[in-house]
Amino acid sequence: MTESDFIPGGTVTTPAGFSAGAVYAGIKKKGVDVLDLGIIYSREPCTVAGVYTTNKIKSAAVVVNQQRLAKGGMVSAIVANSGCANSSTGEQGLTDAIETTELAGKALGIAPEEVLVASTGVIGVRLPMDAIRKGINGVVLTPDGGHDFERAIMTTDTVPKEAAIAVKSGDTAFTIGGVAKGSGMIHPNMGTMLVFLSTDAAVTPDFLAESLRKAVDVSFNMISVDGDTSPSDTVILLANGLAGNDPVAAGNPLAGFFYRALESLCIHLAKAIARDGEGATKLIEVTVKKAVSIEQARRAARTIVSSNLVKAAVYGRDPNWGRVTAALGRSDVEIEEPKLDVMMAGITVLKKGRPVPFEREKAVKALERTEVPILVDLHLGAGEATAWGCDLTEQYVVINSAYTT
Amino acid sequence: MTESDFIPGGTVTTPAGFSAGAVYAGIKKKGVDVLDLGIIYSREPCTVAGVYTTNKIKSAAVVVNQQRLAKGGMVSAIVANSGCANSSTGEQGLTDAIETTELAGKALGIAPEEVLVASTGVIGVRLPMDAIRKGINGVVLTPDGGHDFERAIMTTDTVPKEAAIAVKSGDTAFTIGGVAKGSGMIHPNMGTMLVFLSTDAAVTPDFLAESLRKAVDVSFNMISVDGDTSPSDTVILLANGLAGNDPVAAGNPLAGFFYRALESLCIHLAKAIARDGEGATKLIEVTVKKAVSIEQARRAARTIVSSNLVKAAVYGRDPNWGRVTAALGRSDVEIEEPKLDVMMAGITVLKKGRPVPFEREKAVKALERTEVPILVDLHLGAGEATAWGCDLTEQYVVINSAYTT
Repeated sequence: MTESDFIPGGTVTTPAGFSAGAVYAGIKKKGVDVLDLGIIYSREPCTVAGVYTTNKIKSAAVVVNQQRLAKGGMVSAIVANSGCANSSTGEQGLTDAIETTELAGKALGIAPEEVLVASTGVIGVRLPMDAIRKGINGVVLTPDGGHDFERAIMTTDTVPKEAAIAVKSGDTAFTIGGVAKGSGMIHPNMGTMLVFLSTDAAVTPDFLAESLRKAVDVSFNMISVDGDTSPSDTVILLANGLAGNDPVAAGNPLAGFFYRALESLCIHLAKAIARDGEGATKLIEVTVKKAVSIEQARRAARTIVSSNLVKAAVYGRDPNWGRVTAALGRSDVEIEEPKLDVMMAGITVLKKGRPVPFEREKAVKALERTEVPILVDLHLGAGEATAWGCDLTEQYVVINSAYTT
Repeated sequence: MTESDFIPGGTVTTPAGFSAGAVYAGIKKKGVDVLDLGIIYSREPCTVAGVYTTNKIKSAAVVVNQQRLAKGGMVSAIVANSGCANSSTGEQGLTDAIETTELAGKALGIAPEEVLVASTGVIGVRLPMDAIRKGINGVVLTPDGGHDFERAIMTTDTVPKEAAIAVKSGDTAFTIGGVAKGSGMIHPNMGTMLVFLSTDAAVTPDFLAESLRKAVDVSFNMISVDGDTSPSDTVILLANGLAGNDPVAAGNPLAGFFYRALESLCIHLAKAIARDGEGATKLIEVTVKKAVSIEQARRAARTIVSSNLVKAAVYGRDPNWGRVTAALGRSDVEIEEPKLDVMMAGITVLKKGRPVPFEREKAVKALERTEVPILVDLHLGAGEATAWGCDLTEQYVVINSAYTT
């Protein structure tokens, strides 16, 4: 028998052997309870997998992590800061990112190569290394520190995003936990989004990488806040093996359980990011069914959930399905208009390509809920995908027209 | 000697032989001075070229026009309405569009096949044929009627967009005129945008089609308001030959003059559409230079000008160039970061990939102008392109969250 359940209050330090901590190092503007530098640490070195931004301009941290992971070593710690993205900072930025790993390595008594880094915040400004130095030495690691670490990576996020899942299968029990940040600039190909996942399961490096890639594809790559992506986006998964299981590998009995738990956790965190989009009041969930391929379903769902007009209509509780079909039509997927069904907030508005009369009052009422599902059925093939986003509000504009000034 | 000049007060009826008129037929909500149905008419049958939406879901008018133009006949009139897009209306929609051409043909004493149609407005609602019937019979055509016609096709547009250019080359003189509408849903691949162009030049059908395609590619396909496209987008160019010139054809002396005048007119109207984007306060002009190809320059310019974050930054007079490079980076064009230069509103903010210190006050001041140029130089090849868009404001959200309710 296998069980898997979200753990109340779970976070990235919930799996065995992980601890974390955070301080205010002086990178962000000072404020009550502000934290801006955090460390995640595992007492056993971890197998690691990472997925990074597809933006052609990458931050220094992304470059350094990619170089380290390419060498295939183990990882024991991640240092992350908010307030400065260390992006468009050239050679100096790389030097600063590497020095950060050296400082953390020294403080933790591990090799610098065992340390990964992540930075989020303003682009084009050098990391304040004095603050980083002092900050790293001030971090106190505790088994409960995931919550503080999460607060240290938040920027325009309004709520922390943390979760953990416990999996039990026969004699084997393991846990997967995670924290995430990201609210503006979130998009399918990874926005300014940082996600740190941890597990005490033993997992082979190949299966860990494959599982993370697959889970990211159906979760973080299916959310959109504003269509923009950032040079800093990062998802890292550490596995320290303290659960004592035979390493999870492709084809072995635990593989499916591990993957499904990881996927649930990633979707949970991805939805939390979409729901907390800058200025958002509603989560939009777009499902596209019976496309000719999964790839086409994904593209259609992402185009619809990214449409400013759809997002503004949902904000205004406007059952304006014409905007849904207009976005679908430009997503460059196969459509036969006479087969097309569309439902908004549970109400059928288009059936076989033709409008279905509905009570506007009822539809407006249905659109008042904080989670708005949009379902598109193409009736062509077997491809299905779901994407998540948020509504577009005046507050989004207010936040983003006054960011650095 | 060749001269070409914009004609003050020019419109689609400025070229010889064109007249137009408009009425309030009762398709839109009644209001002071509201017009919602218009006709353009040429006393000589015209050679015609059209460019249509790339959206997979096409309105009835687009389908009917494409079928007619595929047959290669001449066109003498265009009937256009606002208030109802006649889209997602199935067979009934096609029947209604065809009946509209029959009604206009009868009123004008020409064959229905010589009439094209265009509709803009709400999607999924049938054309009110009683109103169309009565409206068509009420239209009075005058040589000055282009202005009224323009008002009849406006929806959320706040200002009319009309212009005409006179070209004189030796003994030959001809005029090209046009009107345009479109403010929300405008995007490079054609938003809810209607553009009607007319000329008294004689032009071969092939050269007319080729010229229009090329001119649309550097004008209407390079503007973006919100990334959405509509099923109704249409650009139609009519040439009635009343200027009496030898038909303009590829390779003949007038070809270049004709094309350049057409391009100027299209860019003028395209910028007018971008400037009048829903809720917009500023025109943004993004030029990408020295890309490895024109195609890549076009893609990069359009991605930057479409970025919500760039648009919101310009609105907030925020010289946040990190958003420009983030959009550039995700546009999937070749970039070598150490070669990249960026200027915003005339101020160099990034040189060879590194931030250039600038006075924030001065930059904020420069961003106060109503036309904000953004220049990206990739220093890689010979590809260059310019795209136009507008800033993103709270008002855009207000307009689009309360459109049909």
